[in-house]
Amino acid sequence: MRVNAPRFARVAIVGVGLIGGSLAIDCRANGSWGRIAGIGRSQANLDVALERGLIDEASRDVAAAAGCDLVILATPVAALVPMARRLAPHLAPGCIVIDVGSVKGALCDEIQAVLPAAVQFVGTHPIAGSEQAGAAAARAGLYVGAQCIIVPPHGADPAVVARVEQLWRAVGGVVQRMDGADHDAVFAAVSHLPHVVAYALAATVLERDAARRRGFAGAGFRDTTRIAGSSPEMWRDICLLNRTAVLHELDHFQTRLAAMHIALRDGDGAALLAEFTAARDALEGDHE
Amino acid sequence: MRVNAPRFARVAIVGVGLIGGSLAIDCRANGSWGRIAGIGRSQANLDVALERGLIDEASRDVAAAAGCDLVILATPVAALVPMARRLAPHLAPGCIVIDVGSVKGALCDEIQAVLPAAVQFVGTHPIAGSEQAGAAAARAGLYVGAQCIIVPPHGADPAVVARVEQLWRAVGGVVQRMDGADHDAVFAAVSHLPHVVAYALAATVLERDAARRRGFAGAGFRDTTRIAGSSPEMWRDICLLNRTAVLHELDHFQTRLAAMHIALRDGDGAALLAEFTAARDALEGDHE
Repeated sequence: MRVNAPRFARVAIVGVGLIGGSLAIDCRANGSWGRIAGIGRSQANLDVALERGLIDEASRDVAAAAGCDLVILATPVAALVPMARRLAPHLAPGCIVIDVGSVKGALCDEIQAVLPAAVQFVGTHPIAGSEQAGAAAARAGLYVGAQCIIVPPHGADPAVVARVEQLWRAVGGVVQRMDGADHDAVFAAVSHLPHVVAYALAATVLERDAARRRGFAGAGFRDTTRIAGSSPEMWRDICLLNRTAVLHELDHFQTRLAAMHIALRDGDGAALLAEFTAARDALEGDHE
Repeated sequence: MRVNAPRFARVAIVGVGLIGGSLAIDCRANGSWGRIAGIGRSQANLDVALERGLIDEASRDVAAAAGCDLVILATPVAALVPMARRLAPHLAPGCIVIDVGSVKGALCDEIQAVLPAAVQFVGTHPIAGSEQAGAAAARAGLYVGAQCIIVPPHGADPAVVARVEQLWRAVGGVVQRMDGADHDAVFAAVSHLPHVVAYALAATVLERDAARRRGFAGAGFRDTTRIAGSSPEMWRDICLLNRTAVLHELDHFQTRLAAMHIALRDGDGAALLAEFTAARDALEGDHE
């Protein structure tokens, strides 16, 4: 155990996938969690979680969260608010609820708004493995060295926030507190925009003559489009839930691309070189 | 030696970088090349090539190509035509000249146009390591398994084309003959467009708040922007020399991106999902 992990006697994981399941493995291993209930829609996935020992009991009924002192919301982001609403009547006063979604800000406000006032909600976002690959993909040590963003709501109990931070630190996470809107602006740029761009690039290059073009594609194409292999449903939801910030970054990207288009169309080598050089230097951090 | 390598008694490599230097290593190793002259602008780079034994003699004077039966044009693409023009008066009748540039089509026509009629020119493009990293970066085996595109000019001597193909096969290349315009259309899509996109993405994400954003960037951003670390000069030149085809692909990309922008702006999840799904499926070859 790296640090003293906060004790929870009874934990519910709602959505026992890569993120929730991996957290269960490590918190069981560090001895900080008592009994673990898994809640989900898919009985097959819950069966895998039970067989692998990630959870002690499985249920498709949100009532299984009754009596828990910690609830992990680890469903796809679009299901977080509806799920929190369904869980609400069953949650014990003082229960700590965290989510692990890729969007915070307004989404976390909505989650908190549907939870009872006596429940302590803290938004979190561990930056680790974005694919929701199910209980079969859960593994020990997923969070070692991973950044874990903590977004405490206004007026959050500092002791509760500290417990949540300790929970992530105890599994190896590098904890960083952020404002929700700031989180969404930063991740719109460094994560959400690159996914939109990768989808657009893969579609453009392969919309005609795909088999042949794939045969000529080298490492450059493979790397730039790798994340276009991600779940379309998940990224639709993330983009919609962080729409304003993603549109803002997309606007900037389209403007930058239009400038390159004009430079190329006009055969303006100096302008093109300036664009490419600024990008290369920014990437390599030459000007800091 | 994998296949019988064609013999050349005296070879000149113009631009002894990763591409030309690696070819020299393998052709010296397979015993098919006699004396090798290195021609270049940088004495320091030529000295490295001499020290490493890539070449037998070094010169900053194109006259060193006199008497060669094979000349490899391995300069940056923008220098190919001017260099061919300067070499022209020194080339022996029957000499085979190949280039190794990333753009073929009109560029190869121009190269051929400035060479004497008695010289045999064949365009080639080995798909291996795009950075012009100098003689120090040359290494054995660079071309093993690499695709090598062969673009014979109209009316090329079939025996000469066959010799050039054997040259690349003998160092492990997988040879494929293509029409120059077809080559440029395919590589505009699978290589040149991804570079433009990577530069635009890196610049957009890092134009503000770069140090902090870089700290939050995960594998997705790193992969999508890796090739934005490539030489801005080289990619300016490739884009300008293949301008029509790159603009064509860029148009398609901007149209695709605009459709995603509209879907996101309108909160049209179905349209966004259709775009992302088509991209993911195209990437994975699900519909073939």
